Amino acid sequence: MPLDGRIETALQRALALVQTSSAPPLLGAALPYAIFPGGARIRPTILLSVAGACGDDRPELADAAAAALELIHCASLVHDDLPAFDDADTRRGKASLHRAYGEPIAVLSGDSMIVLAFEVLAEAGAVHPGRALRLIRALAQRTGAAQGICAGQAWESEPVVDLAAYHNAKTGALFIAATQMGAISAGHDPEPWQDLGTLIGSAFQVADDLKDALCSADVTGKPAGQDVALARPSAVRSLGVDGAWRHLEDILSGAIASIPSCPGEARLAKMVQAYARRIMDIPTAAVRG
Amino acid sequence: MPLDGRIETALQRALALVQTSSAPPLLGAALPYAIFPGGARIRPTILLSVAGACGDDRPELADAAAAALELIHCASLVHDDLPAFDDADTRRGKASLHRAYGEPIAVLSGDSMIVLAFEVLAEAGAVHPGRALRLIRALAQRTGAAQGICAGQAWESEPVVDLAAYHNAKTGALFIAATQMGAISAGHDPEPWQDLGTLIGSAFQVADDLKDALCSADVTGKPAGQDVALARPSAVRSLGVDGAWRHLEDILSGAIASIPSCPGEARLAKMVQAYARRIMDIPTAAVRG
Repeated sequence: MPLDGRIETALQRALALVQTSSAPPLLGAALPYAIFPGGARIRPTILLSVAGACGDDRPELADAAAAALELIHCASLVHDDLPAFDDADTRRGKASLHRAYGEPIAVLSGDSMIVLAFEVLAEAGAVHPGRALRLIRALAQRTGAAQGICAGQAWESEPVVDLAAYHNAKTGALFIAATQMGAISAGHDPEPWQDLGTLIGSAFQVADDLKDALCSADVTGKPAGQDVALARPSAVRSLGVDGAWRHLEDILSGAIASIPSCPGEARLAKMVQAYARRIMDIPTAAVRG
Repeated sequence: MPLDGRIETALQRALALVQTSSAPPLLGAALPYAIFPGGARIRPTILLSVAGACGDDRPELADAAAAALELIHCASLVHDDLPAFDDADTRRGKASLHRAYGEPIAVLSGDSMIVLAFEVLAEAGAVHPGRALRLIRALAQRTGAAQGICAGQAWESEPVVDLAAYHNAKTGALFIAATQMGAISAGHDPEPWQDLGTLIGSAFQVADDLKDALCSADVTGKPAGQDVALARPSAVRSLGVDGAWRHLEDILSGAIASIPSCPGEARLAKMVQAYARRIMDIPTAAVRG
């Protein structure tokens, strides 16, 4: 099955753990609203690609890991959109969850998706309990208060920000989870896969900075020029447009070079190259073409 | 070690998973603020008592389960206190977390404690991966959107409320988690332990209704008479004070009778009786003495 089909099926199966029973109607409707239709599903795609490169000998575990990771991402979007954070009116082209269902249901939807992520991994764990526990630890570490996306968001409440820690946690954490959980699903050591996750996360961050600086709101779906307007740290602010562009190319070459030796190494390198082309497309369209 | 010592030590050990590393300072300070000093720690006390009654052959797993359960409870208090829900100024005799640290850190503290609960169970799981995965599933089920405390809180956003589902999820869920996770920690089947958790949860609910009706705010630490003032469902409203009192006695006898056959059955029955006396003390002091 193509990766996108596997991801959507895994998410539907995860949601069935909640919807087959007696959830309160609003919360029961808010969860699929938060999960479908998705964005690019880039994190679970990376996860399944790495699992594939490592042999993917327990595809049901890789599918559960992909669903769990995307659930955490969806939860973070719902909570980040809340009035206490970004106070966003829209998300993925429709009303943000708290605008559609109210703030209490938005808080509880985020909480429920975090819980469901771990439940999905535990449910799938029967085929290999040891790997399932390692997946749960990896996901928790990249979600939680020390180095996870909770830490990343919490840095925004600090008067003095450790910029490296902020970017690693806010953007990098779930990409590191993606590569490492892909490896764990297939029984490989996650350690050598950390660099690839970190570098893909950095590329994503720099590409986002370039888009913010160069593209109109029509292209990105977000207001343009926000980094400068809000004095946010940005690769474009510190390196200039050309410098940020060269930095992005360096990061992507580094990402491909960092791929650990594994059965599907060549195919994974092609996937990262294709991802790189996609990342670099939007600024190219806006600036160079 | 006495149970309360085990619980505090287990919670400190859980928190060390976050604090030894580079958490953002405010979030790193908010987590211990949310966890210490605790309330009665009634849920982890029940969990460890049931584990003890079942032989407690993996005390490190029972300790992790007790910490995980209390972390979920603490997370629910922080999120329930948010302006979108109860908008509480105080909790356990000090400022509520969002009053002390701001709303963003309060949302993220709750999220982080949910994540930490599952991380603690996965970390302790090496001694018995199968039991650890069963603990994670049991905790997720009693926390999540179908029958867990997320469902319980979400029922309050519904125009029409299924009262039995509401009480079971809002109050009962974590007591069922307590008895079932105690059994699982010690390698026993959790199924026969559900009734005890349900009945302790019901007793807790009816005692709370009696306290609300009979005690001053000085005694309960909460405004009195809120159930009638807010037209909330309450055992006192539907049965009267004497009826609710008899109902509470019936529930507690039923709870003792429901204890499954196990090595420490007699001792556990004494513990539930002692708990029952403590539950019934406050209304007695207010009304009968």
